[in-house]
Amino acid sequence: MNSTCVQEVISPCCLVRRSINTVVQLLKRVLAHKNMDMATVNALPYEDFVNLLGNVVEKCPIITAAVWSGRPFLNFAALEAAISEFIDALPESGKEGVLRCHPDLAGRDLRGGTLTRESREEQTGAGMDALTSAEASRVTRLNEEYKERFGFPFIICARLSDKATVLRQLSERRRNERAVERARAVEEVKKICRLRLQALVRDDAQNKL
Amino acid sequence: MNSTCVQEVISPCCLVRRSINTVVQLLKRVLAHKNMDMATVNALPYEDFVNLLGNVVEKCPIITAAVWSGRPFLNFAALEAAISEFIDALPESGKEGVLRCHPDLAGRDLRGGTLTRESREEQTGAGMDALTSAEASRVTRLNEEYKERFGFPFIICARLSDKATVLRQLSERRRNERAVERARAVEEVKKICRLRLQALVRDDAQNKL
Repeated sequence: MNSTCVQEVISPCCLVRRSINTVVQLLKRVLAHKNMDMATVNALPYEDFVNLLGNVVEKCPIITAAVWSGRPFLNFAALEAAISEFIDALPESGKEGVLRCHPDLAGRDLRGGTLTRESREEQTGAGMDALTSAEASRVTRLNEEYKERFGFPFIICARLSDKATVLRQLSERRRNERAVERARAVEEVKKICRLRLQALVRDDAQNKL
Repeated sequence: MNSTCVQEVISPCCLVRRSINTVVQLLKRVLAHKNMDMATVNALPYEDFVNLLGNVVEKCPIITAAVWSGRPFLNFAALEAAISEFIDALPESGKEGVLRCHPDLAGRDLRGGTLTRESREEQTGAGMDALTSAEASRVTRLNEEYKERFGFPFIICARLSDKATVLRQLSERRRNERAVERARAVEEVKKICRLRLQALVRDDAQNKL
């Protein structure tokens, strides 16, 4: 890329056509509910890469945008590992920053309709929109206690949990030591990331299982 | 915070009232066009801190969310330094990730109305919405050349620039070495951050000037 001649002249019309073509191709894939293969992912300009994969870690497009530097990725596992390693290399404050970008489970954003699409699907899938009044009060209270204790929200991979599991984990994990719980929460972020990524990018290893 | 008893019972009604009160207080400040003082900033729960200051680095709420761990901040300069140091400590890919979260100058997002509020104000302030047809074509072409060469968008603190400066810098900086230009772009991000922060938090040093 560095060797590209900066004097090269690209017509604006050509650029617009190219952009439209790219978007049309991407839309076709999404509409066809087909996951992208790794060759397609590796060929994406950073803008499309971030637009399509920017929320695999909730509200942290910087992570996706950063790992683009490491392309091409050999396969799904390599892309997932790059994201995971980027998170692991962050200082502890940075890991807490990732956690703080997540919404509460069954919180204001779910009730107010301001969750990201991914979070909404995950939370409703785990029944967080169908709590009884008593359950909702309990979750609110436990969420507040958890945040007061740790300074970040309770995070669990909702797609791998049902309502009972979420409530039990929330109650149990709030008693953890801070460092233990931070590490546990980061692991949950990675589980969420893997599932979001699998919804967008073909995971050949998964297909072989 | 770690010493908080996890068995403490907080009534949900009390929590809701507390949340509403916090939001009302914050709204009053914003509506009154008063910058927050540092005592107010230091007292913010992480959710309000991220909601209010989360876009001082474009689309990188993780950075604001991370520096919350370092509160209380002595003054504006200390908060600004914490953000700056977090960016500096990122790996090169992470710094490029920050850059890639920025929109093009006078690009699709400006034309399509999909810029963040802060970016829109900055770009229109520098006349990016009032380019002649020839200027617009030139900026589009130079932006594409720049992105093709560096793998991130051209970033300049638009509030400190006019149209002529933007066009000249875009033309000149695309010839830089990659590492030089990345460092330069990060410096521009920090200038933008300072001005966005000054719009939200009282900078006593600035008032003394």
